[in-house]
Amino acid sequence: MLPLPVLRRAQEEWLDFAGLGASVIEISHLAPEFKQVVYDVEALLRELLRIPAHFQIALAHGGGAIGFSMVALNLMAYRPARKALYVNSGYFAGRAAVEAAKFGTVEEIASSAGTNFDRIPDLKRARLDPAASYLHITTNNTMVGTRWHTFPETDGVPLVGDATSELLSRPMDLSRFGVLYAGAQKNMGTSGLNVTIVREDLIGHALPITPKMINYGQLARDHSLTNTANTFALYMARLVLEWIKTCGGLAAIEAVNEQKAALVYEALDRHPGFYKPHAHPAHRSRMNVTFKTPSEALDERFVTEGNAEGLYALKGHRLFGGMRASLYNGMPIEGARALAGFIDEFARRNG
Amino acid sequence: MLPLPVLRRAQEEWLDFAGLGASVIEISHLAPEFKQVVYDVEALLRELLRIPAHFQIALAHGGGAIGFSMVALNLMAYRPARKALYVNSGYFAGRAAVEAAKFGTVEEIASSAGTNFDRIPDLKRARLDPAASYLHITTNNTMVGTRWHTFPETDGVPLVGDATSELLSRPMDLSRFGVLYAGAQKNMGTSGLNVTIVREDLIGHALPITPKMINYGQLARDHSLTNTANTFALYMARLVLEWIKTCGGLAAIEAVNEQKAALVYEALDRHPGFYKPHAHPAHRSRMNVTFKTPSEALDERFVTEGNAEGLYALKGHRLFGGMRASLYNGMPIEGARALAGFIDEFARRNG
Repeated sequence: MLPLPVLRRAQEEWLDFAGLGASVIEISHLAPEFKQVVYDVEALLRELLRIPAHFQIALAHGGGAIGFSMVALNLMAYRPARKALYVNSGYFAGRAAVEAAKFGTVEEIASSAGTNFDRIPDLKRARLDPAASYLHITTNNTMVGTRWHTFPETDGVPLVGDATSELLSRPMDLSRFGVLYAGAQKNMGTSGLNVTIVREDLIGHALPITPKMINYGQLARDHSLTNTANTFALYMARLVLEWIKTCGGLAAIEAVNEQKAALVYEALDRHPGFYKPHAHPAHRSRMNVTFKTPSEALDERFVTEGNAEGLYALKGHRLFGGMRASLYNGMPIEGARALAGFIDEFARRNG
Repeated sequence: MLPLPVLRRAQEEWLDFAGLGASVIEISHLAPEFKQVVYDVEALLRELLRIPAHFQIALAHGGGAIGFSMVALNLMAYRPARKALYVNSGYFAGRAAVEAAKFGTVEEIASSAGTNFDRIPDLKRARLDPAASYLHITTNNTMVGTRWHTFPETDGVPLVGDATSELLSRPMDLSRFGVLYAGAQKNMGTSGLNVTIVREDLIGHALPITPKMINYGQLARDHSLTNTANTFALYMARLVLEWIKTCGGLAAIEAVNEQKAALVYEALDRHPGFYKPHAHPAHRSRMNVTFKTPSEALDERFVTEGNAEGLYALKGHRLFGGMRASLYNGMPIEGARALAGFIDEFARRNG
């Protein structure tokens, strides 16, 4: 879901971008008017996320999944052991490790697979090899509905976070990270764009085979205009970032997201004999709420009847079943309220 | 430039795609309505390009430039020598070879660098090593304005063509190719999409390190829905492909493109003492017309005055100087006629 004012603005200027009498997708990525889009996206990201000056921004084609490969290609050789540490907190966390293992040694230092990824793995007893090039976490786990509320101490090992399903949904302290990356499609407009924020000293260690188009240093130096960029996604990103700013920035966005999540979780918790939320209460995502009813038949009815009431996309991922409600920035609080009301009402009728 | 009916259609249904009451960029890439977009793009490509049944289609994030890496990662190991042959016909052809050399041995078998890429290199005396995994050409050279009118015999070495700046501008005989690929931004809608058409027997030879998101076999098997796709670019591609079909298909499109190119080249040739077309007459591109006036000052004036008459983007690439007029499918014949008129008039005033 995207904010309606953003969609309306895009529609209005679709045939006349920046007074050029042409659509934004018709102009060159090297036209001054388009370069300004990229500069604005960079500046707005810096302002909204309070990115420290010693971090660079790389905007690549793709999404979170190409990020799995980018991280390993650019960082695996940061230290001579060519080893990386991965925390397995769900499906995408696992895939990130698989892609990284193509370019070095990957060590899984913690996993919550044993409890079907209902929580963020505990790192207290994990050994963090100080020779590792980086430690990779998935800050929000879309499919299972968990998130890292605070980020781990890493004892000098650069922390890499995949924030695909939550970037721009809350302030995040970049100083805790070496790299933070995300696909843009959840909270930053549309798909086809990978956003990577990388600490300067981590640039320059890419494996020699790294394709130019996914090399952090190359992209950062070129303001991500190394070759034809995803012009439309960058254009939408600027509109969305401007909208976040008019909303009051990420603290204000987070406050609304907390309210939305509370409405939905509280509704589920009011019917403890009926709904089974998947995530451990201490690890609940604010973006993706996952739960089941007492039976698969009722799960299916929940999705169908929700759909009829205008509550779309409630079906959980096929790998996990049940329901998943996504509460991305674009969903207004009224949407969460309607969902909470439906959760109550469905339990009353079927409980 | 895109056809106005395509842009208008996109604008009209921007807030309500397929009757879903949401924008196409808001729905999941796995929604049935979006899967249909991808299936339609595949079917329309097959129909318009007459793609034989033993070819597969892979639609990846990125453009032509990620294609440079994809080709090498997927094909370099097709034969045990891990060697590929490259023809250097311009800037992008050279970059394709640089990216490929990261994954195997690259042999430049012919080059027109000696004549500033004013022609397609002659392969008559080139030795085609039959142990090579593939032979790479750039079917249309955007910056210098040349193209391969016919494609070389390769003696069993699979021919790989980068058709970024001309795919869908003319019929192309796929049976001559092992792989044909292109960025979508020239004649197929918008940027952020790589289209690769690959012969079935060339699938399954990817290097083990190939990232999942740019693996031909993976993408082909998944109908390119391996992970979140570039939904907007695929949506625009369907609209553009449908428009090409209503125009009468690629033979009709080619006939118009030939007329447009003839108008512009004939205008230049009417003033042989004034304009210096860059490309050798036998190798002229139909998409990109490159030329110079007698001086850099006049080149600059040509661009400025053309711009004032509504003829945009005439400045040549900074590496080559002069002018470059692009005549992609979206430019109507009236545009070419206006440009030809301006070419005549400018020569009369300044010659």
